[in-house]
Amino acid sequence: MMIIMKSDATPTQVERVVERIEAMGLSARLFQESEATVIGAIGETRNGSMDTFDGLDGVDTVRRVTHPYKLASRQFHPADSIFSVGGFTVGGEEIAVIAGPCSVESRSQIVETAQAVKEAGASALRGGVFKPRTSPYAFQGLGEEGLEFLAEAREKTGLPIVSEILSQTQLDLMVRYVDVLQIGARNMQNFSLLRAIGETRTPVLLKRGLSATIEELLMAAEYILAGGNRQVILCERGIRTFETTTRNTTDINAIPVLKDLTHLPVILDPSHATGHADYVSSVARAAIGAGADGLIVEVHLHPDAAVSDGKQSLRPEKFSEMIRQIGQIARVLNRRLASAEASAPALAGG
Amino acid sequence: MMIIMKSDATPTQVERVVERIEAMGLSARLFQESEATVIGAIGETRNGSMDTFDGLDGVDTVRRVTHPYKLASRQFHPADSIFSVGGFTVGGEEIAVIAGPCSVESRSQIVETAQAVKEAGASALRGGVFKPRTSPYAFQGLGEEGLEFLAEAREKTGLPIVSEILSQTQLDLMVRYVDVLQIGARNMQNFSLLRAIGETRTPVLLKRGLSATIEELLMAAEYILAGGNRQVILCERGIRTFETTTRNTTDINAIPVLKDLTHLPVILDPSHATGHADYVSSVARAAIGAGADGLIVEVHLHPDAAVSDGKQSLRPEKFSEMIRQIGQIARVLNRRLASAEASAPALAGG
Amino acid sequence: MMIIMKSDATPTQVERVVERIEAMGLSARLFQESEATVIGAIGETRNGSMDTFDGLDGVDTVRRVTHPYKLASRQFHPADSIFSVGGFTVGGEEIAVIAGPCSVESRSQIVETAQAVKEAGASALRGGVFKPRTSPYAFQGLGEEGLEFLAEAREKTGLPIVSEILSQTQLDLMVRYVDVLQIGARNMQNFSLLRAIGETRTPVLLKRGLSATIEELLMAAEYILAGGNRQVILCERGIRTFETTTRNTTDINAIPVLKDLTHLPVILDPSHATGHADYVSSVARAAIGAGADGLIVEVHLHPDAAVSDGKQSLRPEKFSEMIRQIGQIARVLNRRLASAEASAPALAGG
Amino acid sequence: MMIIMKSDATPTQVERVVERIEAMGLSARLFQESEATVIGAIGETRNGSMDTFDGLDGVDTVRRVTHPYKLASRQFHPADSIFSVGGFTVGGEEIAVIAGPCSVESRSQIVETAQAVKEAGASALRGGVFKPRTSPYAFQGLGEEGLEFLAEAREKTGLPIVSEILSQTQLDLMVRYVDVLQIGARNMQNFSLLRAIGETRTPVLLKRGLSATIEELLMAAEYILAGGNRQVILCERGIRTFETTTRNTTDINAIPVLKDLTHLPVILDPSHATGHADYVSSVARAAIGAGADGLIVEVHLHPDAAVSDGKQSLRPEKFSEMIRQIGQIARVLNRRLASAEASAPALAGG
Repeated sequence: MMIIMKSDATPTQVERVVERIEAMGLSARLFQESEATVIGAIGETRNGSMDTFDGLDGVDTVRRVTHPYKLASRQFHPADSIFSVGGFTVGGEEIAVIAGPCSVESRSQIVETAQAVKEAGASALRGGVFKPRTSPYAFQGLGEEGLEFLAEAREKTGLPIVSEILSQTQLDLMVRYVDVLQIGARNMQNFSLLRAIGETRTPVLLKRGLSATIEELLMAAEYILAGGNRQVILCERGIRTFETTTRNTTDINAIPVLKDLTHLPVILDPSHATGHADYVSSVARAAIGAGADGLIVEVHLHPDAAVSDGKQSLRPEKFSEMIRQIGQIARVLNRRLASAEASAPALAGG
Repeated sequence: MMIIMKSDATPTQVERVVERIEAMGLSARLFQESEATVIGAIGETRNGSMDTFDGLDGVDTVRRVTHPYKLASRQFHPADSIFSVGGFTVGGEEIAVIAGPCSVESRSQIVETAQAVKEAGASALRGGVFKPRTSPYAFQGLGEEGLEFLAEAREKTGLPIVSEILSQTQLDLMVRYVDVLQIGARNMQNFSLLRAIGETRTPVLLKRGLSATIEELLMAAEYILAGGNRQVILCERGIRTFETTTRNTTDINAIPVLKDLTHLPVILDPSHATGHADYVSSVARAAIGAGADGLIVEVHLHPDAAVSDGKQSLRPEKFSEMIRQIGQIARVLNRRLASAEASAPALAGG
Repeated sequence: MMIIMKSDATPTQVERVVERIEAMGLSARLFQESEATVIGAIGETRNGSMDTFDGLDGVDTVRRVTHPYKLASRQFHPADSIFSVGGFTVGGEEIAVIAGPCSVESRSQIVETAQAVKEAGASALRGGVFKPRTSPYAFQGLGEEGLEFLAEAREKTGLPIVSEILSQTQLDLMVRYVDVLQIGARNMQNFSLLRAIGETRTPVLLKRGLSATIEELLMAAEYILAGGNRQVILCERGIRTFETTTRNTTDINAIPVLKDLTHLPVILDPSHATGHADYVSSVARAAIGAGADGLIVEVHLHPDAAVSDGKQSLRPEKFSEMIRQIGQIARVLNRRLASAEASAPALAGG
Repeated sequence: MMIIMKSDATPTQVERVVERIEAMGLSARLFQESEATVIGAIGETRNGSMDTFDGLDGVDTVRRVTHPYKLASRQFHPADSIFSVGGFTVGGEEIAVIAGPCSVESRSQIVETAQAVKEAGASALRGGVFKPRTSPYAFQGLGEEGLEFLAEAREKTGLPIVSEILSQTQLDLMVRYVDVLQIGARNMQNFSLLRAIGETRTPVLLKRGLSATIEELLMAAEYILAGGNRQVILCERGIRTFETTTRNTTDINAIPVLKDLTHLPVILDPSHATGHADYVSSVARAAIGAGADGLIVEVHLHPDAAVSDGKQSLRPEKFSEMIRQIGQIARVLNRRLASAEASAPALAGG
């Protein structure tokens, strides 16, 4: 149960609601929203308990939230969350396409890739500088130098940058550089990191864990939201199953399910979800067809020479063709590509 | 390795190829295709072994088939298999939509449903008369009476009928009635049944097992193909994973992967793959976006009163809206709905 | 809810119970047990509904069975089911060890293997004559000839024989030869086959499907029990997961869970559950430690030359060492090896 | 390939080996072992490449290590790693039993529990003070206060303490208090944390991730070993599968597989692996039967009142009975309980 106070509710009115929640054996949790105070009643609620708060002084609305995630739930926030990320909006009619290499490898690589994906119609640039590698002996990323290269690419193309954070110790550095903090699948339940990021106001791209349920993904988002950071984009990136033909199994069901359960924007990563460049475009089209709010795609100028994930990276030409197709599918669903719509090729015969 | 003989190859020429295969320590297997004899060399082949057959009398083409499935492989049969099923074609430009109730419940139910799905644009009618139920105490289907009702629905609407077979003992009966024999997920590796169906010439809809790999699905198809029945449609229907929000997890990757590995048509069942009517249309759009050749969808006039699978069945109105959207997505990929294209609404702004 | 009638209950008394069940909106199902008629009330029961039958004429006991499986449930049959299989008992204090090759390959192979496993302490002989092979081009078993070889091995060693049935069409043949009908993982939900076997009175070894839940395994057993065949042994044989180091993942939890939920005997197949001879003995010891009622183990005289499953087959010496260890662990749990106890080596230092 | 230098090898000799490795296109990595320098050659090695180093000045032994994990591999370190943890040894003949509550709740709770598990025969005390909870609104642990309570329990019982670390920011605090740092399943691939812990010399208990493969678990251990911390205990705690009867699926195969692949000690957590107190003892016996080096078990004085994991916690009496049985199974495998052997009851009839 979530009790949304009126914008002019007094501290005393808030306090009275809290007292009444606690008298019911529940615990109260206050969230300072931009418009008003919201009070969450955490615990098992009984039938009729909502009536207790209706008409209480200072109370605007009472909403039943039956899920363990509260702020993330569409029951609490029925309308889609739409927010701006460096020049485009996520979660509304626009389809966001974040593209770029797995790893930032050099200044020229990231700048040239940024120009290529911008031209093809991407809305943002991705590139890893801290890499979560299975082996301690593998390339671990360029670190801060890589962030500087990303910043330069942003300056040259205007594309906002998205990069993965691995540890709280990198947080101060990362927020100085990036437009969107990416939390990778392996850190989806790194609760200390989630909590720390919840304290910032940098938008977040939260990837689903390899074997996380949809509910666990929403609970991870709740950690960030509860800290006051409300700009969270969820990302389906394939789950681990028995099937080994592809790197992961794209849980396409997760798109409509998440859109049903939460107001947060939902995108899909067809590169990790398939692990093969040959299948990326098909799965990207599927995602947009299913109602995703965007994509994050690995693009590399020379996939064969990539230091990581070359096998699943698209060449710019292939990426450009993919963008064209998803733009057309977006139109079937009354949506459009975020930034590149103006230059997108018209629908064949349209 | 598959050796395709010339259409006028003599038995002696065939025999010489077989001898040479066996001399290499492999086993030979003959398939009588409509055009020519094809000889499969089963076992581990060495580099250069294909050259042995090039230029041999009577040999037309030699193809390297590295997969354990041979006849199902696109290496053996590079072009898409396209075949006709009661009035429409599967596997080409046309998108097939098979729709109807989980179970045939009564004459009026199936006839009225057939009319409704026909009107919405379906290409074929589905309905189970032998039901594989987890519980021995649950409704097990109407049996032959149900087949008569299906036949009547076909007569009234012109829609070909698709129904599931559970056992070899039902085979004679089923082939007298149905246009397409459906093999359910639980029977995908019922090798005796596959072999028996391989002896018929009735088209087959083969569903992927709950935890079958893509390779196992193709090996199951190979059992049917090896018997001489080449009209096999593959169907992704969701796999079993740890995720419990949905009934199964739609492996959307399987669509492009199967289209890559095999020449057989590939469709998707969004009803079983999600288990919730609310998510069926999204996943149907995803399937067509990903390149599927069709769909099989559960439609019920009164889902709440259905004897089985009501939760995942679409009402006709919802189904009709779904058809409209997938028709538009099909056009983006230069395809069209199988039979109902004429009456499909034009693409908005098209 | 299960209503157990008195042994001298009259048909009229039975009928009155049935009427009352149906009046409650449930469906009644009669089972003729050796001692008495049992009536199952299938459907959602309400609190207090059991009282309706207490004290009714002819009613002996009423048991609440909350699971969808009824006859298989320990709620219905609190005591362990113990039954005799060709000379030893399953489900009681004795630990059954069924051993032998994956496939019967020749007369000498099976006879010699039978002698070797008998000497090591096995209680029964396994050997497949109809093989469920993923590929249609792989060895499919010797068929009836193999059954004759098995029968000869039984005659020479006294070991009862266990062999897999793939299809209803093999049923008449199989029941003439085998002591225990094995239903393989791939056929666990071949409901037509289960139903047909339920009509026989031959003991059954029912293997869990690759991705079957424990509840589904019990529902499959229910199909057989409902037909009147009450001698069903359940077998955990590993499930399919993301882990690929081993062929399957042994769900060792299934042993205590099944012993808790059902009265049927439960054994484990460490050969398929691991897929590697090196790991078979460890997992066999684990199974007995966990409380399993027995094992089914693949043993081959020359694993390298086996036509199937050589990699996971134990040599007789290794099998003999395994038997010695599990005999000792059985004693810790106050149990003993079924037939070979007399010749089992004493516990070290015992 | 791992090149173990002689203990008196000179820096020049080491350098020459490194040069030769790099000349082969591989990268060299130096590890300072207590006895000698070890040089790892990372990358794809060719046949015959080992010979290059044989007989080179200063080279003692060359070992082929084909796995991606090097220091963790039994190919590199053939003998079992045995190390001392606060009074008992892990990895040798002794079976370690770590027991205690999920969360430290109060001073009296942890001290009394410590006394109870000590009396029953435990070798170490567990108790969480930083809890990784799915919900941000759930109890998150007592933090440093809890560590003080643990230290007091250690003082009173002599049991070393094991507690989970969630973040690098807790590292300084944790190493001051605990005898063993536990890394939970959700942090198994928190590479920053692994790396930081690798720099300490506190023994580590590394739990397998919910969906981590055995190879990934060993790679995670490699991160710690590569930092110079060689006291790593691996822990199977159940994996996530489709089965929902139990909280997780115990991968019992992992015990013999890990004992085969690595020299590190391997224990099992039957509490998380099953999630039900009723099944814990069975699975604990299975683990010891399979060859595990120990157990970590949740014990609570009043499971119904536990703030977390009550459902899967054993009462002390049940734990005591479990210890008795595993002690007997250990003897079958020529092992014994770590510290409590003296007071362990003799084997019945022994």
